[in-house]
Amino acid sequence: MSTSTSHITGLLAAPFTPMHADGTINFDKVPDIVNLLIDNKVKGMFVCGSTGEGPSLTTEERKQLAAAFVKAANKRLLVFVHVGHNSITEARELAAHAKEIGADCISATPSTYFKVDSIDLLVSCLQEIAKGAPSLPLYYYNIPALTGISLDMVKLLEKAGEAIPSFAGIKYTAPLIHDYQACVNFNNNKYDILYGTDEMLLGALATGAKGFIGSTYNFIAPLYNALIEEFNNGNLKEAQRLQYISVEMVRIIVKYGGLRAQKAMMKLIGCDCGNVRYPLNPFAVHEYKLLETDLRNIGFFEWVCKPKAAVVS
Amino acid sequence: MSTSTSHITGLLAAPFTPMHADGTINFDKVPDIVNLLIDNKVKGMFVCGSTGEGPSLTTEERKQLAAAFVKAANKRLLVFVHVGHNSITEARELAAHAKEIGADCISATPSTYFKVDSIDLLVSCLQEIAKGAPSLPLYYYNIPALTGISLDMVKLLEKAGEAIPSFAGIKYTAPLIHDYQACVNFNNNKYDILYGTDEMLLGALATGAKGFIGSTYNFIAPLYNALIEEFNNGNLKEAQRLQYISVEMVRIIVKYGGLRAQKAMMKLIGCDCGNVRYPLNPFAVHEYKLLETDLRNIGFFEWVCKPKAAVVS
Amino acid sequence: MSTSTSHITGLLAAPFTPMHADGTINFDKVPDIVNLLIDNKVKGMFVCGSTGEGPSLTTEERKQLAAAFVKAANKRLLVFVHVGHNSITEARELAAHAKEIGADCISATPSTYFKVDSIDLLVSCLQEIAKGAPSLPLYYYNIPALTGISLDMVKLLEKAGEAIPSFAGIKYTAPLIHDYQACVNFNNNKYDILYGTDEMLLGALATGAKGFIGSTYNFIAPLYNALIEEFNNGNLKEAQRLQYISVEMVRIIVKYGGLRAQKAMMKLIGCDCGNVRYPLNPFAVHEYKLLETDLRNIGFFEWVCKPKAAVVS
Amino acid sequence: MSTSTSHITGLLAAPFTPMHADGTINFDKVPDIVNLLIDNKVKGMFVCGSTGEGPSLTTEERKQLAAAFVKAANKRLLVFVHVGHNSITEARELAAHAKEIGADCISATPSTYFKVDSIDLLVSCLQEIAKGAPSLPLYYYNIPALTGISLDMVKLLEKAGEAIPSFAGIKYTAPLIHDYQACVNFNNNKYDILYGTDEMLLGALATGAKGFIGSTYNFIAPLYNALIEEFNNGNLKEAQRLQYISVEMVRIIVKYGGLRAQKAMMKLIGCDCGNVRYPLNPFAVHEYKLLETDLRNIGFFEWVCKPKAAVVS
Repeated sequence: MSTSTSHITGLLAAPFTPMHADGTINFDKVPDIVNLLIDNKVKGMFVCGSTGEGPSLTTEERKQLAAAFVKAANKRLLVFVHVGHNSITEARELAAHAKEIGADCISATPSTYFKVDSIDLLVSCLQEIAKGAPSLPLYYYNIPALTGISLDMVKLLEKAGEAIPSFAGIKYTAPLIHDYQACVNFNNNKYDILYGTDEMLLGALATGAKGFIGSTYNFIAPLYNALIEEFNNGNLKEAQRLQYISVEMVRIIVKYGGLRAQKAMMKLIGCDCGNVRYPLNPFAVHEYKLLETDLRNIGFFEWVCKPKAAVVS
Repeated sequence: MSTSTSHITGLLAAPFTPMHADGTINFDKVPDIVNLLIDNKVKGMFVCGSTGEGPSLTTEERKQLAAAFVKAANKRLLVFVHVGHNSITEARELAAHAKEIGADCISATPSTYFKVDSIDLLVSCLQEIAKGAPSLPLYYYNIPALTGISLDMVKLLEKAGEAIPSFAGIKYTAPLIHDYQACVNFNNNKYDILYGTDEMLLGALATGAKGFIGSTYNFIAPLYNALIEEFNNGNLKEAQRLQYISVEMVRIIVKYGGLRAQKAMMKLIGCDCGNVRYPLNPFAVHEYKLLETDLRNIGFFEWVCKPKAAVVS
Repeated sequence: MSTSTSHITGLLAAPFTPMHADGTINFDKVPDIVNLLIDNKVKGMFVCGSTGEGPSLTTEERKQLAAAFVKAANKRLLVFVHVGHNSITEARELAAHAKEIGADCISATPSTYFKVDSIDLLVSCLQEIAKGAPSLPLYYYNIPALTGISLDMVKLLEKAGEAIPSFAGIKYTAPLIHDYQACVNFNNNKYDILYGTDEMLLGALATGAKGFIGSTYNFIAPLYNALIEEFNNGNLKEAQRLQYISVEMVRIIVKYGGLRAQKAMMKLIGCDCGNVRYPLNPFAVHEYKLLETDLRNIGFFEWVCKPKAAVVS
Repeated sequence: MSTSTSHITGLLAAPFTPMHADGTINFDKVPDIVNLLIDNKVKGMFVCGSTGEGPSLTTEERKQLAAAFVKAANKRLLVFVHVGHNSITEARELAAHAKEIGADCISATPSTYFKVDSIDLLVSCLQEIAKGAPSLPLYYYNIPALTGISLDMVKLLEKAGEAIPSFAGIKYTAPLIHDYQACVNFNNNKYDILYGTDEMLLGALATGAKGFIGSTYNFIAPLYNALIEEFNNGNLKEAQRLQYISVEMVRIIVKYGGLRAQKAMMKLIGCDCGNVRYPLNPFAVHEYKLLETDLRNIGFFEWVCKPKAAVVS
């Protein structure tokens, strides 16, 4: 279990789920993705999350995919398996499966259909899920923009810590850095509070963040690692310059529709993960060139992971 | 497929999913529920919907439950199976299963995690789902309060009607009667637009509604059938009086937390369906008496289905 | 003060504020507007409300405009003056002025900047405003879509009725007919609950509404009066047909941007009220013809008020 | 007009509006407030904003109050007058008045009743307001949590900069630091983008913020000035510690209802500004002691402005 002396630090990427043209999962691509992340000094993976289109996969697919990532990781980097599901029963089963295959941690959100509206109910739901894997560290996945659930995270720490022995922290994907700081500082930094808004990494870093989970660490982890290093070395201007490249990149991503564009970017950097699955809107053929041009204009490609070199080495 | 000459009329209930004390499904109870609805002149059932806690069940449970309801119905009343799921792939599989077991119709919402934000994308999602059961009439389940998806339903009719041969209409659960009327009147009443806000039945009825799907038809269908008859006979004052009993009942339901209280009401009327499953908040033992008293005060029990008599007959 | 024996019935229109090309108020037009409404059997006016762009006017303009409408009405129809303002102090002053000029009733919303979040606070605010005109019947203006304030109106009736002697009811502009019915039925129909969603008039009428305040009664009051008559005579199909014309009209209004299009429609029916003021988006010259064509296609002009005849008489 | 070579830096406070027990403005208190801010090295004031309950004041009160603050400031610190109003006409008049009395800058939001939904419309509204004081630098007041208006601020800079010669920047009160950074970096730091979420100052500072406008700078500006200095000197841990005191303070403020509690805190630090005006909920007598205890527990009073010493000196 996580303690204040052994926090998760550095960048963790939420990998995309590679898909064939017919929409089925391309399991053969998983090792390439993992190697690319390792080559780029990413410390862990958050599998089957939002970026991985976890909610769009079947339970069976989620299990197979999680197993493929754990196997490809081969203890070289941490593997979080996101087990959140509208059905708490399925979530608990996914948690048990994550344990079985040797995942390092699990993460969960409760239902986004029926929404929990109190910390007590949230804790009860997480408790149910934890029963599936009582020995795996459990992280609440706080992402109000997607779940519509916006509760006081400090109160969650107060109650979940007592009620759930395996409770280990929060994947915190929201811009409220003050609330984030209150979670980090809670009970002498007892929990891992992993920050999840990549385009605000610098602000979170300055306020005390040590670990980060995000989607854009799939492409340009080197930029963020450089940013962290420059900041730690006192080169604030350079850290700001690097963060601003990330901000510009995210503005382009938003312009092209968010997640659908991010998955397309994997193809642009040479690690084709296929297209998104419905209900996301598939990326159109003519959009790739436009997206590439916009990204080239901000210097994106100077920072990208180099998958081919990775394969060679 | 539904045509303007054969619309679904009357009351359809969305049955609760009966559960044991340990939270597993109590399949033995299904025939009692169905018989109760038939005795109360309910014309159809909407299985695995919101009221049935469909999103809280596993895919396997949903299949077994749908099969149990279809079997118990034995062609005596229409069976809609709701197949909506965050994973469109699972939804399509549930649609195929519904066909296999002999359901009459299917209904679907796309994901409530990644939300569709255009009619075109909604149509694409429904199209994917329809592929699982191309010959079963498909209804879009429009319930913005739970899905967070609030699109122009007239535009859906325009596009889904062309793109999906099996598209048959909408389960319309929202208070916007003007929009509802526009759907009913669309293309010479081409589609079944089933109204789903029970406490506004009279307003919808006056505006042209013929068929209704709701949760409170599980308890007091006789009241609503009487309401419809009084309205059709020109006894407006009496119809209003009956609707107001429904309004008062719904205010009590809201006071006790909504769906969790409705499931508790099944026990109060003698057809115990057990408690709700997380993420809904289980009904507490001490609440039953309070709820019963409130319901007694508005005359609720004079209108309830009488399950014991049903069992005797 | 309103009692259960003397409810306001029939149609009340919320008149547009006539403006010159330079955006100043065209007071000379006020008598034309009033005469047009009277000729069309409208029973009252709701001045300086949303339709009248009340919040966009200065306090001084609101006073002058209210006085002009009261004078033009000359006791021939009821005049409500809407006194809601972000500043409760200004609202109270507007209330006092309404009394001074001989208005019949006042209506208010509290601030839409700082939002009241409890019934108690809402009652306190209304109480403050009522102090400006303790003898004028006061109506709460419930319009959540514009104010962002969505509280339980039955609880308001419970508390405001006791706390504010002049409290007389609610202008209820929302689609929740069940909640509306609960307000109408409250305490033996003690209060005037005036319905405000024109395109759902039929549903509200069937559920017990007697009085209606709306914007589209400025153009086609004859249609709504016919609708009410047909309904009362048991001609439900004809009432539905008339309501549907209203629904189609509102869909066109929405297509052209809402209020800005409605004000443009005054010009199309021959009672030019000029353009809207910022922050509404002025109607463009080329849009008039498009709007007119759309309206002509649904038969709108067969039902409009005939201002020229009115001028002649 | 602001240029990239002369940006506003440091802390600007949004002063409370001092009120008598009867709710009228206590103008005599204004010089005390100004002196307190100057003694605490605050560089400017944002008068009649949210903290100052600007929207709750009458236009006449706003004018008198702005004049009192400008006079008391006597060029010793910058004075922004917030002129936003539901009526653009009133806002323009307030802008003209601000110029007349010698204010340094104006700030505006358009209506919160009718909401602008496009950058073009927002620019048109700001343009109208700027006409009242074409020579005063104009700042858009971006505070989506209160206005409900959430538009792309980079696009505003693109368009407002061209359309409005006096456009000078944004008071940016939102947690989206990435969007904030994009505004700061826009066109070589052309505009003043003043950050407004006090409890996230450190994150914004690290990302490039130079100027800050907030409400808590009324009480503990010394803490924030120390925070900035520690950060600039590379003492990150100490900066984080100071920021966390602010975070804890804001959690207490939220617990006691936000703005109402902040105004009460002025009394606790010895600069009594009276109570809030409706629609805010007045602070109750028994709450002061509870609030004081909570604040004492986090060490708040060690950082507060010392008004009595200020008066003596």
